[in-house]
Amino acid sequence: MPTQFDPPSGTRDFLAAEVARRERAFAAVRAVFASYGFEPLQTPAFERVDVLLGKYGDEADKLVFKILRRGEHEATGEADLALRYDMTVPLARVAAAYGSQLPTPYKRYAMGPVWRADRPGRGRYREFTQCDIDTLGSASPLADAEVLCVHHDAMAALGLTDFVMRINSRHVLFGLLEVFAVPAELGPGVLTSLDKLDKMRPTDVADEISGRGLAANVANDLVAAMTADDALDRIRTVLKPSEIGMAGLEEVDLLVALVSAQVPPGRIAFEPRLVRGLSYYTGPIWELTAAGVPGSLGGGGRYDHLIAQLGGPDVPATGSSLGVERVLMLRPDEAGPPAKMDVAVTVLTDDLAAESFALAAQARAVGLRASVYLGGSAKLGKQLRWAAEQGARWCVIYGAAEREAGAVTVRDLTEAQQQTVPAADFTAYLAREAAARDA
Amino acid sequence: MPTQFDPPSGTRDFLAAEVARRERAFAAVRAVFASYGFEPLQTPAFERVDVLLGKYGDEADKLVFKILRRGEHEATGEADLALRYDMTVPLARVAAAYGSQLPTPYKRYAMGPVWRADRPGRGRYREFTQCDIDTLGSASPLADAEVLCVHHDAMAALGLTDFVMRINSRHVLFGLLEVFAVPAELGPGVLTSLDKLDKMRPTDVADEISGRGLAANVANDLVAAMTADDALDRIRTVLKPSEIGMAGLEEVDLLVALVSAQVPPGRIAFEPRLVRGLSYYTGPIWELTAAGVPGSLGGGGRYDHLIAQLGGPDVPATGSSLGVERVLMLRPDEAGPPAKMDVAVTVLTDDLAAESFALAAQARAVGLRASVYLGGSAKLGKQLRWAAEQGARWCVIYGAAEREAGAVTVRDLTEAQQQTVPAADFTAYLAREAAARDA
Repeated sequence: MPTQFDPPSGTRDFLAAEVARRERAFAAVRAVFASYGFEPLQTPAFERVDVLLGKYGDEADKLVFKILRRGEHEATGEADLALRYDMTVPLARVAAAYGSQLPTPYKRYAMGPVWRADRPGRGRYREFTQCDIDTLGSASPLADAEVLCVHHDAMAALGLTDFVMRINSRHVLFGLLEVFAVPAELGPGVLTSLDKLDKMRPTDVADEISGRGLAANVANDLVAAMTADDALDRIRTVLKPSEIGMAGLEEVDLLVALVSAQVPPGRIAFEPRLVRGLSYYTGPIWELTAAGVPGSLGGGGRYDHLIAQLGGPDVPATGSSLGVERVLMLRPDEAGPPAKMDVAVTVLTDDLAAESFALAAQARAVGLRASVYLGGSAKLGKQLRWAAEQGARWCVIYGAAEREAGAVTVRDLTEAQQQTVPAADFTAYLAREAAARDA
Repeated sequence: MPTQFDPPSGTRDFLAAEVARRERAFAAVRAVFASYGFEPLQTPAFERVDVLLGKYGDEADKLVFKILRRGEHEATGEADLALRYDMTVPLARVAAAYGSQLPTPYKRYAMGPVWRADRPGRGRYREFTQCDIDTLGSASPLADAEVLCVHHDAMAALGLTDFVMRINSRHVLFGLLEVFAVPAELGPGVLTSLDKLDKMRPTDVADEISGRGLAANVANDLVAAMTADDALDRIRTVLKPSEIGMAGLEEVDLLVALVSAQVPPGRIAFEPRLVRGLSYYTGPIWELTAAGVPGSLGGGGRYDHLIAQLGGPDVPATGSSLGVERVLMLRPDEAGPPAKMDVAVTVLTDDLAAESFALAAQARAVGLRASVYLGGSAKLGKQLRWAAEQGARWCVIYGAAEREAGAVTVRDLTEAQQQTVPAADFTAYLAREAAARDA
């Protein structure tokens, strides 16, 4: 493919087969969302820069695509709009704008492209579809459990089987910081280091933590507790003196109990090492991981004050972002290109064109996809090849002989046999054959 | 709504009811596209500026949203990307990029947002969904007729009844210029003026044309021929000496014959006054108008060299852009908000929450949309009001009495009656009731 005709760096063109595959996946996910009573929200591709910037920190702001002012203002080189970076900032704006017009709680899903100027590579795109569910206005743990169940069911609907929802709570982490007497100012840094236990050796993580200023023996004890074979038991014991830590355990246990009753065994597990980087989480947090897949297939948690920080009302909130694009990347070759046609109609001479055109319309009238040959060749062989390329089940051949006989030849391309049908019986014949095929 | 929470000027937020209404319309249109064997294409929201700019003239270029370069280049104030302005330039790029990977002919549809920095107002948006069908690689009039039929059927699928496809050919217009001896350099201007016969008085159009340099008596004769009561007959007579004009009439007549055989009477008509502004059309042109609706509901035509001019291969092409957004604006109140739920389950006390949560899952397992109450109130009355707001058909009441009895109370909210069902029969009962409702 010549470079100058490539889509822009980090973006993709989706031809028919890929569109069909993606739409099937998104439709399956959407059906799960709807089955839990989540409703759709669509916001514009861009927001005003002041709505978008300064919400997620300087690093994220650098990845925002900004839109130049127009007309006489273009020369200023300033931006007044920016492509949405996620679905959460637009949600906060909508919550602020529509307030009481929205249901309480507001359970919404958003599926659509977001844009991030990340360096493209290995499955990282600058335009990708994000699938988010969020519940605003409910502090109930049932709201967290519901989001978790939706996330689980959506992944199952995509055909995933070997996956786990790993659950933790920020309160468990705060409790650990408390019982290990981590000074408040070191807390965020220590959590950031603990988050690397997936990728780094425990001793390296302990070194990093002591490098941040925590006594080496405390850092070693903390990391040892998190990585022991019996880490779950040890952490439960260790947290006993911490009120916040015990509340976190209770939070996790309730969530695990609620969700595990609804999902197959082994799909949900307490994971005290789970931190999730984003500092805005305020309660339970979770991440979905699948066997053999590095990283996560989405995750989320409770973020009770973020909507207010983003400019919306101060409502409790919980939500998940689903890694549907990642699942699509994992299973690239699931199906061949879809058939485009049921009935392909020949056009053998110009003076037969109108009648061929009408035959296609008759086939559509009985619910079949149908079209005439639009190429330049009068050769039957070439037109039959075209019919086969379309994935057509039937090729309708209509030539001078057929016109003379008041008939139509219907060739079954999958069974390599053909039948001459009186023109008056044409649609009834097709409808009968189609019904027999579907049966 | 406070201004600072509005979506950016010229864009819209779509809440659930509006999303549902729009998706229904787009799904209906998509089904028509597929029934003719058109296949989807999705391209990125933005293209490189050099792909997008300089293709449609300076006026259009001013309406393109340009994206600032990022990182160290941001300070240059330069743009390297731009939001797509239509679906045709991306199609040309794809035709160039994928060449022989695409079917011949390539019948593709594109449905998605485009962005134009027009002054917002009266149904004119800066972000709107464009629905295009195009056939690349066929010079056959059947390809034009097929596009017209698709456009017609899609509008009919949206519920439109009182509409007409007005058809003309650039060759008819060229023939008129020829027989009225309009100098070549005046041709485009004269056609631009004729295009205003819809909105301006004939004498004013004639004045404008003579102002462009055509002799006043010729301008008057031309306008008189176009606006006479028997204009169709007069134009057929007038065009007799023009080979190109007669070819245009033949083109129109063939199209009208092919299409009118497939659509209800009166839906297609020759309209010699139709010009369509865009100079890139090379053959038949058309526009769909509806009774009582100013302007058009989309249109198109044959544009045999445009794809090459836009950077693609030199292939014959024909297509239509469907005014689906306009149809949606015409019928704003078609349906109320969709019901979000079939089964709403109460959560009356914390210790019953897990069981209520499980009841909702059981309802989903038999194909119903179901969710538990996530609010903070323990009051049954408040929870019943919530259930009604969701549009739920049933409210499942599960309290201490029900738990004791091993039962569930199912209240039918539309019939205002309720039944106590043994817990073991719960899903079977719901499935039965749902089947009875659907029957």
